Amino acid sequence: MREFKRLTPYREALKMLLNDLKELNEIEEVLLSEALGRVLAEDIVSPIDSPPFNRSAVDGYALRAEDTFPAREYSPVELRVIDEIVAGEESKAKVEPGTAVKLMTGSKMPEGANAVLMQEMAERDGDIIRVLRPVAPGQNVAFAGEDVRKGEIILRRGQILRPQDLALLKSVGFKTVRVKRKPHVGIIVTGDELIEEFDEDALKAGKIMESNSIMLTGLVRQYFGQPVFYGVVPDKEEAIKSAIETARGECDLVLVTGGSAFGDRDFAHRFVELLFHGTTIKPGRPVGYGERVFIMSGYPVAVFAQFHLYVKHALAKLVGARNYEVRVRARLTERVSSQLGRHEFVKVWYENGEARPIKKKGSGIISSLVESNGYIEIPEDSEGHLEGETVEIVLY
Amino acid sequence: MREFKRLTPYREALKMLLNDLKELNEIEEVLLSEALGRVLAEDIVSPIDSPPFNRSAVDGYALRAEDTFPAREYSPVELRVIDEIVAGEESKAKVEPGTAVKLMTGSKMPEGANAVLMQEMAERDGDIIRVLRPVAPGQNVAFAGEDVRKGEIILRRGQILRPQDLALLKSVGFKTVRVKRKPHVGIIVTGDELIEEFDEDALKAGKIMESNSIMLTGLVRQYFGQPVFYGVVPDKEEAIKSAIETARGECDLVLVTGGSAFGDRDFAHRFVELLFHGTTIKPGRPVGYGERVFIMSGYPVAVFAQFHLYVKHALAKLVGARNYEVRVRARLTERVSSQLGRHEFVKVWYENGEARPIKKKGSGIISSLVESNGYIEIPEDSEGHLEGETVEIVLY
Repeated sequence: MREFKRLTPYREALKMLLNDLKELNEIEEVLLSEALGRVLAEDIVSPIDSPPFNRSAVDGYALRAEDTFPAREYSPVELRVIDEIVAGEESKAKVEPGTAVKLMTGSKMPEGANAVLMQEMAERDGDIIRVLRPVAPGQNVAFAGEDVRKGEIILRRGQILRPQDLALLKSVGFKTVRVKRKPHVGIIVTGDELIEEFDEDALKAGKIMESNSIMLTGLVRQYFGQPVFYGVVPDKEEAIKSAIETARGECDLVLVTGGSAFGDRDFAHRFVELLFHGTTIKPGRPVGYGERVFIMSGYPVAVFAQFHLYVKHALAKLVGARNYEVRVRARLTERVSSQLGRHEFVKVWYENGEARPIKKKGSGIISSLVESNGYIEIPEDSEGHLEGETVEIVLY
Repeated sequence: MREFKRLTPYREALKMLLNDLKELNEIEEVLLSEALGRVLAEDIVSPIDSPPFNRSAVDGYALRAEDTFPAREYSPVELRVIDEIVAGEESKAKVEPGTAVKLMTGSKMPEGANAVLMQEMAERDGDIIRVLRPVAPGQNVAFAGEDVRKGEIILRRGQILRPQDLALLKSVGFKTVRVKRKPHVGIIVTGDELIEEFDEDALKAGKIMESNSIMLTGLVRQYFGQPVFYGVVPDKEEAIKSAIETARGECDLVLVTGGSAFGDRDFAHRFVELLFHGTTIKPGRPVGYGERVFIMSGYPVAVFAQFHLYVKHALAKLVGARNYEVRVRARLTERVSSQLGRHEFVKVWYENGEARPIKKKGSGIISSLVESNGYIEIPEDSEGHLEGETVEIVLY
């Protein structure tokens, strides 16, 4: 009878793992158009003030606000239009008392003017405009450096680049951006019972459709990685050893599913110097890690939990990613019990501020993952939560 | 003086838009490995029971639970092991009273057995095992159809495919999946003041770096679309007309930025029969839509709001996507005021159950988008929210 001598507490194992991994040094310079979802490798400093000058925020008339203070609907102020420019042009005129310059959204403010009257608010008659209401100083003006200032850090390393981040980079003049290389993640699936091609007779005779590879491939892509699938390897000591060695030589991280327990054919852990093997997580207890290799369960639900509780954080560490999880709070619609001494991964459906625990149990039950969109973690010292309690959910 | 005669209320305009668009008919059959993030085109029915038979959920001994009921640590029950099988094999033995079959995780349950004792819980001595504690009927058995049943709908049309969805499809035998074709979304940027290549002198003279195209390209990709960029088109009636006609001929949807207001050079709305032009949203009021063309603002923040309030929903309609938004609830850290009669798009930073409104105003201020990760919508009849109120946030 062999069992785990000791289950390493979840957080202790996570700390060992993250201490063992080093952030990747390699940086790639990519076009902005290729950078969506990539992880920023360094802080970005703006090379310019943006906007570079005071500019109009609307189409209208640049003027001296003071001139308009007496304006009333029954006694409009009249101003003389001394220049008209179009977008991208610059007026050389100086706005003196009693005058205005017609300009476009984005136009540089002419000398002397300190506010803009929206075009729709002016009554125009030849080169005269009538102003019906006072305009406040600064109104409809976007001031120099109001968006970002030259020398200011506008994006920080570890940012997962979103469309608006790319727009900001472009707006201050960048065409490319330096991001972390994607970690290569080898995926090795073991198990003689697994088949890749559908065969109903084989399934009825005890075979199982292999589904961990497609799931892990997707998860690795979601969390900054480049998956490399090494195929389904038979439960033979030599074959597994050789697959792990090859993958470890070619990848930053290796995920091996199946054979994490101590069954007669659980070989994988014999070829890796494990930092931990067996932790308090449930499901997924037999997870092991050492030398950049994860030994994972064969069951999809256990693999999924192991990925979110360990592998995801390892990938984030490799690229230095920040804010890679969406954590929300929700009211539990029913109680959830948890075994003391176990760090439980409880699947939930989150919607409208409420979290409904998924009742289907069993680590082979993939549909329980499909029916969920997030999880609660219940640490070792908790017996669970009551109906109506507010809990933190990690969305996936 | 021209202005919008009437601002269409936000929801009314949204309804007109969604009524005008038809869901795409075209379906693509793609490999599961290419299907991550795609939108399922039809309900999926499982062709098999999964698991197809009762199977063991652990490595251990299949037995008759009744035999173990008297088992105590001080008086173990002994059973004789009559067969041993490995993964993917099937035992032909029949488990009679007093016997057991050794099997692996996933093995088919042999006839006569109704529970499995975990290997680690058995003391083995030759072909005898000693059972120290009773085993409950059904323990460690995964029953046929427990995951999904033959004929059951396992995924519904409109599902945005996640790693676990692909795993479920694979586990019941699918190699490919039918998804909606990606909508092609033409992006046309107008404005003589815009430049694509960084030129500090030009910026100081009034030009502006064009950043809407990279932002819209990313947003379209995030929401199921295939962006097609038609370049920066000069503020010339003919050029804009021809760009819109080309894009409309080639794409399912066209986004035109710049020229949505009634400035002298705002041409775009002249070439499209608009269903609405000018809505109560803020920022982004001048948005227009008709004949599969959106007329959008030039300012990035307004464009971003217009995208999330209108274009995103249009794209979801085209592909029939469900659950494409993450809506969470949060406590406001400070009050937010809103103008009556306007449907305000208020950017917030969401973290730890709290939402902090972003103070930076101005529709040119891209950094305000970068510093936020979601938004609140405040409808026309509300003046805003107090500090501490719970509000709904849409994350981006």
